[in-house]
Amino acid sequence: MSNVYAVIMAGGSGTRFWPRSRAAWPKQFLVIGHGDDSLLQRTVARIEALIPPERVFVVTNERHVEATRKQLPRVPADQILGEPAGRNTAPCVAWGPAHVRRRDPDAIIAVLPADPHIGDEARYLDVLRAAINAASGDALVTIGITPDRPETGYGYIELGDAISGTTRTAKRFVEKPDRATAESYVASGRFLWNSGMFFFRVDAINRAIAQHLPVLTDAMKRYDAAATLGREAELVAQTYASLPSISFDHGVMEKADKILVVPGEFGWDDVGHWASAWELADKDARGNAAPESSVVIDSDNCYVQSDLGKTADGRIIALVGVRDLIVVDTQDALLVIPRERAQDVRDVIAELKRRKQDKHL
Amino acid sequence: MSNVYAVIMAGGSGTRFWPRSRAAWPKQFLVIGHGDDSLLQRTVARIEALIPPERVFVVTNERHVEATRKQLPRVPADQILGEPAGRNTAPCVAWGPAHVRRRDPDAIIAVLPADPHIGDEARYLDVLRAAINAASGDALVTIGITPDRPETGYGYIELGDAISGTTRTAKRFVEKPDRATAESYVASGRFLWNSGMFFFRVDAINRAIAQHLPVLTDAMKRYDAAATLGREAELVAQTYASLPSISFDHGVMEKADKILVVPGEFGWDDVGHWASAWELADKDARGNAAPESSVVIDSDNCYVQSDLGKTADGRIIALVGVRDLIVVDTQDALLVIPRERAQDVRDVIAELKRRKQDKHL
Repeated sequence: MSNVYAVIMAGGSGTRFWPRSRAAWPKQFLVIGHGDDSLLQRTVARIEALIPPERVFVVTNERHVEATRKQLPRVPADQILGEPAGRNTAPCVAWGPAHVRRRDPDAIIAVLPADPHIGDEARYLDVLRAAINAASGDALVTIGITPDRPETGYGYIELGDAISGTTRTAKRFVEKPDRATAESYVASGRFLWNSGMFFFRVDAINRAIAQHLPVLTDAMKRYDAAATLGREAELVAQTYASLPSISFDHGVMEKADKILVVPGEFGWDDVGHWASAWELADKDARGNAAPESSVVIDSDNCYVQSDLGKTADGRIIALVGVRDLIVVDTQDALLVIPRERAQDVRDVIAELKRRKQDKHL
Repeated sequence: MSNVYAVIMAGGSGTRFWPRSRAAWPKQFLVIGHGDDSLLQRTVARIEALIPPERVFVVTNERHVEATRKQLPRVPADQILGEPAGRNTAPCVAWGPAHVRRRDPDAIIAVLPADPHIGDEARYLDVLRAAINAASGDALVTIGITPDRPETGYGYIELGDAISGTTRTAKRFVEKPDRATAESYVASGRFLWNSGMFFFRVDAINRAIAQHLPVLTDAMKRYDAAATLGREAELVAQTYASLPSISFDHGVMEKADKILVVPGEFGWDDVGHWASAWELADKDARGNAAPESSVVIDSDNCYVQSDLGKTADGRIIALVGVRDLIVVDTQDALLVIPRERAQDVRDVIAELKRRKQDKHL
């Protein structure tokens, strides 16, 4: 499988992880769950058996190129691509693969979000292999996650005909449903969560983009020409921001003819907010996840994050008699919020914007 | 009243205000309630109309002498007395007045704790005047606070016969009662809270101490002799720690013959823990007291203290969706505790001691 490449989409801003995540330090750089790797580092590490770092490309905001290179020293520096502006995922899924195509016109590409959590990495690799196999023809392939709850925060994929093994056709993509619809989806057994992972041959994605988003095909041709002259960066700087801002799901997958879905069940979590971080963390007998130096007394199901408390003589975080609370402590900001309100961190962001306190965003 | 002096007892350690208050920065130095004055500064400022700083003496731990001099620049430096060791209040009420007596053998002395909150300072001064007048004879005088609730955290004084004006004799002193007893005290109308404020003439206190704690009389005579030689500090350093550790209430007031009580009602609060700080603070419409730079969203009756958030570009404290919570944020520690658990800060102190993290105490 030496023709298999990965394009990691690392364009996130991650306001839902304020104050740890900032405009300058988005979610993919955060260490969440077990171990010391960031979500991005884990995403690259867990595919290594199939796709080694030398065949990994990362598309991120140009502001984050340096930090990304530091986090991924084994990925060649020129394969960390900086977008001058975030334009949703479709331009990213055109541009990353364009770089792969220049190197290997017969490549099969796995496009992977930088920041999901994967609980069972062995099973994940099995599903990845199946998806790569399914993409060896002319189909666009995605992985659909078997839902374990009627989640209203994710998109869904309705399954169609069986193809081979577990692989099915995709009947349709649906956006985040309301609660009742989500419940009917889960009950039906015919719907999977949209994982945002895509697999395709270079020629297949070229055809699909030419058919559904031809403006991107034109742009990539010009980038190819500029690359031949060694001037791609210049042209990207001038033109990338004018590409259409549209998701790859919406712009291509929902319209393409032949979409296949490989179902997967491997402890996937899109790590949407601090409550997910608590879910994924190692917890003590009373459900608390806190730095060892913390003093947590008569408290339950709390999540404490503080870089400042990692050393014995560092900052002490003391919690007494609280429940279901998230406490995130950084150098210049502190957040205290109940777990069930974790999504409302956006209200803090809105207030800081209103106050023009950009320094804290 | 140029013969009226104050001795401020500033020996507190204030673990109940951790992490703001520390061994090295006790409660009397804290700014709690309105304004920018510390409790100690307010204690000195509010008596100024009766007792100017040049007639104020402060007894504090020797570690806190420098900080006390800085907080009270108008009190002569040699009137800030440092105890080599805390020995409860009786040695302090002997030693502070000994200094006054050397200067003015006809002095009347007001012994005042450094750190209560007084809501109505004009009424307080009226009561102070009455107590000073009552002390112009040979009685030991105290102020009793008219209770507004069956508080079990304070000592009580039972009233005896009327003397003149509102002044009464004290029938007995009682230690912190249980709930039922406290309720019966308040219902009876015959009990007041013990404020820990004492008023007496120099000769009256000398007689009382000689009668009930003669070991202190002996010690003060030796200190007087050493002072004459300019070597008091030396003798104090050698001997103070060996004085009996006993409260003035217990060692003298409860045994003395003639105790008078002046009742007072002036918004007195002994500022026992963070919940009191919330009570005394200026609060917004939803009952929150927080630095202006904080972001407090959909929260009620919370108290946030952070030096770090006072400036616009400083630290941001964000609270979302929480109730009745105390958040105290200092350079090297953070406390999160419900208001009703405020007394349990002592559990944090105990845990830090167990871990030998003296730096944070």
